[in-house]
Amino acid sequence: MPFDTQNWFTEAIDETGTAFSLKLKTKLHEEQTPYQKIEIFDTQTFGKLMVIDGCTMVSSRDNFLYHEMMAHPALFTHPAPQRVLIIGGGDCGTLREVLKHPWVKQACQVDIDERVTRLSEKYFPELCESNQDPRAELHFSDGIKWLQETAPDSLDVIIVDSTDPVGPGEVLFSEEFYRHCRRALNHDGILVQQSESPLLHQDILLNMYQRMQAAGFSHQATLNFPQPIYPSGWWSATLAGNTKLQHFREQDVQQKTFDCQYYNADIHKGALAVPEFMKKTFTLSD
Amino acid sequence: MPFDTQNWFTEAIDETGTAFSLKLKTKLHEEQTPYQKIEIFDTQTFGKLMVIDGCTMVSSRDNFLYHEMMAHPALFTHPAPQRVLIIGGGDCGTLREVLKHPWVKQACQVDIDERVTRLSEKYFPELCESNQDPRAELHFSDGIKWLQETAPDSLDVIIVDSTDPVGPGEVLFSEEFYRHCRRALNHDGILVQQSESPLLHQDILLNMYQRMQAAGFSHQATLNFPQPIYPSGWWSATLAGNTKLQHFREQDVQQKTFDCQYYNADIHKGALAVPEFMKKTFTLSD
Repeated sequence: MPFDTQNWFTEAIDETGTAFSLKLKTKLHEEQTPYQKIEIFDTQTFGKLMVIDGCTMVSSRDNFLYHEMMAHPALFTHPAPQRVLIIGGGDCGTLREVLKHPWVKQACQVDIDERVTRLSEKYFPELCESNQDPRAELHFSDGIKWLQETAPDSLDVIIVDSTDPVGPGEVLFSEEFYRHCRRALNHDGILVQQSESPLLHQDILLNMYQRMQAAGFSHQATLNFPQPIYPSGWWSATLAGNTKLQHFREQDVQQKTFDCQYYNADIHKGALAVPEFMKKTFTLSD
Repeated sequence: MPFDTQNWFTEAIDETGTAFSLKLKTKLHEEQTPYQKIEIFDTQTFGKLMVIDGCTMVSSRDNFLYHEMMAHPALFTHPAPQRVLIIGGGDCGTLREVLKHPWVKQACQVDIDERVTRLSEKYFPELCESNQDPRAELHFSDGIKWLQETAPDSLDVIIVDSTDPVGPGEVLFSEEFYRHCRRALNHDGILVQQSESPLLHQDILLNMYQRMQAAGFSHQATLNFPQPIYPSGWWSATLAGNTKLQHFREQDVQQKTFDCQYYNADIHKGALAVPEFMKKTFTLSD
């Protein structure tokens, strides 16, 4: 039976030979911003869906996996995170998770495209519910320029919640970018970056490790987690820092006063488990 | 840009509102057996693909995730597994993993459709490389009937490597079936069954837990793992037994003499981590 593509949104990727589709109720919005094309759909089973330049970005149903894993492992690995910078992350879901941590004093989100945030406020209000938190700062400008102008040793955690390493997102995967991150982070500082599919993008992960090391980060660790709307449904985020990244404040996780849908201490430890094929692919630094 | 479905195989599921596609090189085979329609494709990036009644079953590239997780956690949880029954599993990939365990004396695979195995031998020879092992028994008959005729307390591990709980596979998710399993297993015996997507099929998992408990299994535990070609890319297998299933022979895993592509002790522990939403959904028995 042929696939009737009508009423489905499909992200088909020739390079990986895979496609993922969600059945639609209707298209809610479409616009071309100075930076990219943004579409918003209402889906049959995944709630709202934001698509940027044809790539699925965030759905109501499964974004909790990604946003929790981009925020909590890094913040519970740092001994006392107070100042957090999010580069990208315009949908504000990562910001919301970061602000759940009571000891965070300032969370600064720098996304180049204000329209992502304005559309998220309209169509994903639950992701934006902490945007008015007095600790939140929303800036719409170039994240790299922002980072260059950030005082040295002034940040505890940098979260790179970006698109894929093609086009405008590519520079966020460069050694130079990681050098800027390292400069802005203090000694205990931790960088975490979305790092694509462990199955489909081992080359990207390998490059990332090499460039993070070249930029002076002595330790890396990759977190694996499910993300159904992203290619292969299996995604990752990679931590970089100057100390062993397998240790985290487990007791603080056990005693945390906020709710999660996915994350807990066992999930944190489980996400750090390294599949055998990754051990063989990578020369891990710890 | 509309999705040009030509040269892609797509499994589109109205109920879950999701579809997954793989780009094809060519179709290698198609036949209608007395039980089901089997298709074999050569894909651009996932190697060979077997499709049964329109559902993706196994690909060369990612089957290691599923087959290793169906076999090794159960076999390393049992204190000394010698006699293993596989119900379904006609592609022989689970059988191959089971036979990597040197203390297994007999591994019996009972799949109703011999054609699945014959086609696997031709198109997935790597999955069938242990079919000639003297400990392997391949039978082509009804797994439930087989189980009914199995002597009580005669098995250490039962692996239910079946299709979804619709049509002919449905009976394998019934309380009556679990009663037959429990009867055939000895005191330390462990049942493990593929249990669908933790995100998309929570109702199936919940039913499974309730029926396993009603059939007399005092303990259950679900293993989560990635499986890109299955709906949502996130899959699970559920263990049932009479003792705590979080404990396993970790030292034996560390010292195992065979290779895996995914499984190791950290992956085993990580797969047992229970996401927060699952804790809220289920009343877990341990």
